[in-house]
Amino acid sequence: MKIKDLGEFGLIDRLTSILQVSDSSVVVGFGDDCSCVNINGELILFTSDIQLEGKHFLKEKIEPEDLGWKLISINVSDIVSCGGVPKWGFISVGFPPDTEFKYVEKIYRGMKDACDFYKTEIIGGNTTASDMVLLDLYLTGKTDRFVGRKGAKKGDYLILSGYTGLSRAGLELLLMNKKNYEDFEKRLIKAHTRPKARIDLSQKIMNYANSCIDVSDGLIGDLGHVERSSSVKIVLRKENLPVHPDLRLFCKKYSKDPFEYILYGGEDYELVFTVSKENINYFDNCFVIGSVEEGEGIFLKDGISTKKLEEKGFEHI
Amino acid sequence: MKIKDLGEFGLIDRLTSILQVSDSSVVVGFGDDCSCVNINGELILFTSDIQLEGKHFLKEKIEPEDLGWKLISINVSDIVSCGGVPKWGFISVGFPPDTEFKYVEKIYRGMKDACDFYKTEIIGGNTTASDMVLLDLYLTGKTDRFVGRKGAKKGDYLILSGYTGLSRAGLELLLMNKKNYEDFEKRLIKAHTRPKARIDLSQKIMNYANSCIDVSDGLIGDLGHVERSSSVKIVLRKENLPVHPDLRLFCKKYSKDPFEYILYGGEDYELVFTVSKENINYFDNCFVIGSVEEGEGIFLKDGISTKKLEEKGFEHI
Ligand SMILES: Nc1ncnc2c1ncn2[C@@H]1O[C@H](COP(=O)(O)OP(=O)(O)O)[C@@H](O)[C@H]1O
Ligand SMILES: Nc1ncnc2c1ncn2[C@@H]1O[C@H](COP(=O)(O)OP(=O)(O)O)[C@@H](O)[C@H]1O
Ligand SMILES: Cc1ncc(C[n+]2csc(CCOP(=O)(O)OP(=O)(O)O)c2C)c(N)n1
Ligand SMILES: Cc1ncc(C[n+]2csc(CCOP(=O)(O)OP(=O)(O)O)c2C)c(N)n1
Repeated sequence: MKIKDLGEFGLIDRLTSILQVSDSSVVVGFGDDCSCVNINGELILFTSDIQLEGKHFLKEKIEPEDLGWKLISINVSDIVSCGGVPKWGFISVGFPPDTEFKYVEKIYRGMKDACDFYKTEIIGGNTTASDMVLLDLYLTGKTDRFVGRKGAKKGDYLILSGYTGLSRAGLELLLMNKKNYEDFEKRLIKAHTRPKARIDLSQKIMNYANSCIDVSDGLIGDLGHVERSSSVKIVLRKENLPVHPDLRLFCKKYSKDPFEYILYGGEDYELVFTVSKENINYFDNCFVIGSVEEGEGIFLKDGISTKKLEEKGFEHI
Repeated sequence: MKIKDLGEFGLIDRLTSILQVSDSSVVVGFGDDCSCVNINGELILFTSDIQLEGKHFLKEKIEPEDLGWKLISINVSDIVSCGGVPKWGFISVGFPPDTEFKYVEKIYRGMKDACDFYKTEIIGGNTTASDMVLLDLYLTGKTDRFVGRKGAKKGDYLILSGYTGLSRAGLELLLMNKKNYEDFEKRLIKAHTRPKARIDLSQKIMNYANSCIDVSDGLIGDLGHVERSSSVKIVLRKENLPVHPDLRLFCKKYSKDPFEYILYGGEDYELVFTVSKENINYFDNCFVIGSVEEGEGIFLKDGISTKKLEEKGFEHI
């Protein structure tokens, strides 16, 4: 049996069952956006995300500064989705020996810019030679209250922090290899190459969210984790899903359905979370896109019709 | 300018100067075997080491269980070399989608065995597809006193925890692609594929060592870091360097100089450390191989002649 027969999540399930977490300091082990350990009363978060050439980016399609920025951002996104703030990072890199130093230097400047923006620091690293560019970050954070995938309650409102679908459109534009891009297309490309983690919402998530996940594999794919972990049914209202004007332009120009991107795009790095009714008002700048009910599955309500959605999302394996 | 023109350590120097560590909780940033952060009074250690197919191993030359064991061990080695004990690990992996599940499962069983042996746990992970097997571990540990590369003092004795050179001999044997190996050759191969970190010495290192480093790039290469960080001169006594009987057999059979392996082999994962005279007795089972003096450079005393050694060690880039 090959691992592709299991799929990424089938594989992770089997592997995590081999390892055992029995240390009582471990508050959250496998199964959420971050792991969490109580170190002398501090709730410390751990996460890791990689950018591997060929799988997460193509070298000639992303500025090295943006690549460095993105690496930090996708990890900060996991930290803030647990209600935390990033603290200390450890960077494991690999490069072909004949890589230009300036290229590597620019990646590091991009990482430094992101660290300054998110108020975090890289404090150590590891270096290897490799055949392709390998950037693996391990990020540690802190929170006063862990917000996970399994706290969603019946009666909660489902909130999305911003627009999704832009990153996937940007990736497709890059792969079109065009000589010239219109302004809205350049913005979509930037959404893909230089995403911003929602650190601005970290405190509110920590204070008010019952559950939260960041959108990396795609809105529906990631919501599926919340649905299963919390054992709830999620009902989305199509008319409440935010459609970015740039995405509308893209879909009009290339004859695409914007909801394919909004629901399944991936690499959006927005937050989708649930809150009790009395806490909705703290999230005025976000979009209430649905609600949490008893049951299972993810449903999309479009006017008077409701359909069950297939919980597909990006999978590497 | 390519990164190979800078070399691994020239590259690391430049990159670490781009990143800045200003958080006052960070006790040790770049420059040692681990980084160290004070979290609410606890001294927490961070390290990372990778096993990348083609660079650190060849898939058909190492049992997957040994590969998993080795990944944990090389990281534990960095933790104990700072006087610490391992606590929580985070595993970032990559596999080609058509990898056999059984292969991956065996790696995880090897990691689990090592975690049980070293009394540590992996508490989270990340998964990607990749063209070659990628195993990147982040390991966190704890210590009551950080032992680094820069505490060596004039008058200290230099101690080596065990035999070096075996791993390199084992690697060369593997690359000979022989159908049959003699028993001593199988032991040398095992030294390469299944090293054991010196966790048994962790407490004594923490209590009594002034400086310490683990031998991964080679005894002299790694001692060079201690020499430079501590600004001292190191004098080794050739007659005190331990020569393992299996290494002697190997060198006799293949007409090699054992000291080339002992001094420059690499991947030994023994500890080399300095202690004040009054603390030598705590390390009866180790080898006193030299002393620390004022000055600079690493010297090898052979009878009455002394020669300065070239501080070469394994470099990826
Ligand atoms: N790519 C990198 N970026 C930042 N720091 C790095 C990088 N690679 C190594 N370092 C730092 O340089 C020092 C030496 O690293 P390394 O040789 O990997 O140590 P070790 O052999 O003990 O694992 C460490 O303090 C590490 O944190
Ligand atoms: N190779 C692995 N080994 C062990 N645990 C893993 C591995 N890959 C992922 N995990 C765990 O599975 C969960 C889901 O991981 P992942 O999909 O990478 O989360 P995220 O998208 O938030 O980064 C996490 O809790 C993570 O710790
Ligand atoms: C060359 C290339 N192909 C495909 C993609 C699309 N893509 C890569 S990873 C990914 C999902 C998020 O990455 P992952 O490594 O799964 O992060 P995690 O879910 O662990 O946070 C997507 C949509 C891309 N960015 N670049
Ligand atoms: C296929 C293969 N080629 C060469 C080696 C030898 N080798 C690989 S890494 C290394 C040194 C230690 O590894 P490194 O990644 O530098 O660890 P660190 O110093 O960061 O702890 C050696 C001697 C090997 N083990 N396998």
